[in-house]
Amino acid sequence: EVLFFPSRPCCIEALLAEAAEPGAPARPCPCPLPSGDTALSRLVRRVLSARRSLDLCLFSFSCPQLARVVQLLHRRGVRVRLVTDAQYMGLHGSQIGRLRHAGIQVRHDQHSGYMHHKFAIVDRRMLITGSLNWTTQAIQSNRENVLVVEDAEYVKAFQEEFERIWEEYNPANYSFFP
Amino acid sequence: EVLFFPSRPCCIEALLAEAAEPGAPARPCPCPLPSGDTALSRLVRRVLSARRSLDLCLFSFSCPQLARVVQLLHRRGVRVRLVTDAQYMGLHGSQIGRLRHAGIQVRHDQHSGYMHHKFAIVDRRMLITGSLNWTTQAIQSNRENVLVVEDAEYVKAFQEEFERIWEEYNPANYSFFP
Repeated sequence: EVLFFPSRPCCIEALLAEAAEPGAPARPCPCPLPSGDTALSRLVRRVLSARRSLDLCLFSFSCPQLARVVQLLHRRGVRVRLVTDAQYMGLHGSQIGRLRHAGIQVRHDQHSGYMHHKFAIVDRRMLITGSLNWTTQAIQSNRENVLVVEDAEYVKAFQEEFERIWEEYNPANYSFFP
Repeated sequence: EVLFFPSRPCCIEALLAEAAEPGAPARPCPCPLPSGDTALSRLVRRVLSARRSLDLCLFSFSCPQLARVVQLLHRRGVRVRLVTDAQYMGLHGSQIGRLRHAGIQVRHDQHSGYMHHKFAIVDRRMLITGSLNWTTQAIQSNRENVLVVEDAEYVKAFQEEFERIWEEYNPANYSFFP
């Protein structure tokens, strides 16, 4: 599947409620946003399909809706690991602090170069990758693409890249301590 | 194929010379860079494989090496079209002016949102897409990914997105003239 952005703004409360309590009767959300089928709702559905693991490698993560998706998966027992960029994680609106506060493992680079990837791997079997940073600006205003790929060859290459980065960014390897 | 960056710096003179004059005797380049197999040389080879068309949709394009690749294809008669972002095309080091000067068709957005795609389509059959902007900083310093995909479904989706953007950004549609 290929998703193109910008996406119309949409309400994802029904998707979150169904993921939190499968089969519970739907309660209509009072917000004025439509809950139709959009690039954002499709992305959210894909991420919410995680049952065992979610590996995130994101340059910039400031979208509160997607942060709620990740927190929900974490609460549901999915093993979430998040790699991000040191320079961007402290910017205004970043969700990294909130995710760390929720108990999610986060690692970041310690280089001047950017950790510029924007991909997610669901259950080590589905790759979600493209130009899209997980920011509201990118989702609602930019021309962006996201590929959803289950081809084992691509998933394996990105999973290996994730593991390399996860180890390289292990705080035990920090070199800025004396 | 999946390419990961950063790439070691490398000399692409031999690749350019072979593309400009196939079969001509190789002249060694006096530069000190190695000419080995790197993510950059692989990317250059893929782009240089264009025979009929090259559609570029790039947020930021400031890498002089890749600009030379594109100019060479243009001189060789490949139909090059380039879409880029209005805010980034004027930044220091941008290659957009140089490419326009060489006669290559360039179109850009007129929105506040970014034209944030980073993809190329070679001969309407090969898609090159990922997180990588075509900048020397990204190639040499950042963690980046590039997918090379010949699957018709993905190529078609991106080709259609390219044609939509190409039409939308047609200067005949500019709305800032009175």
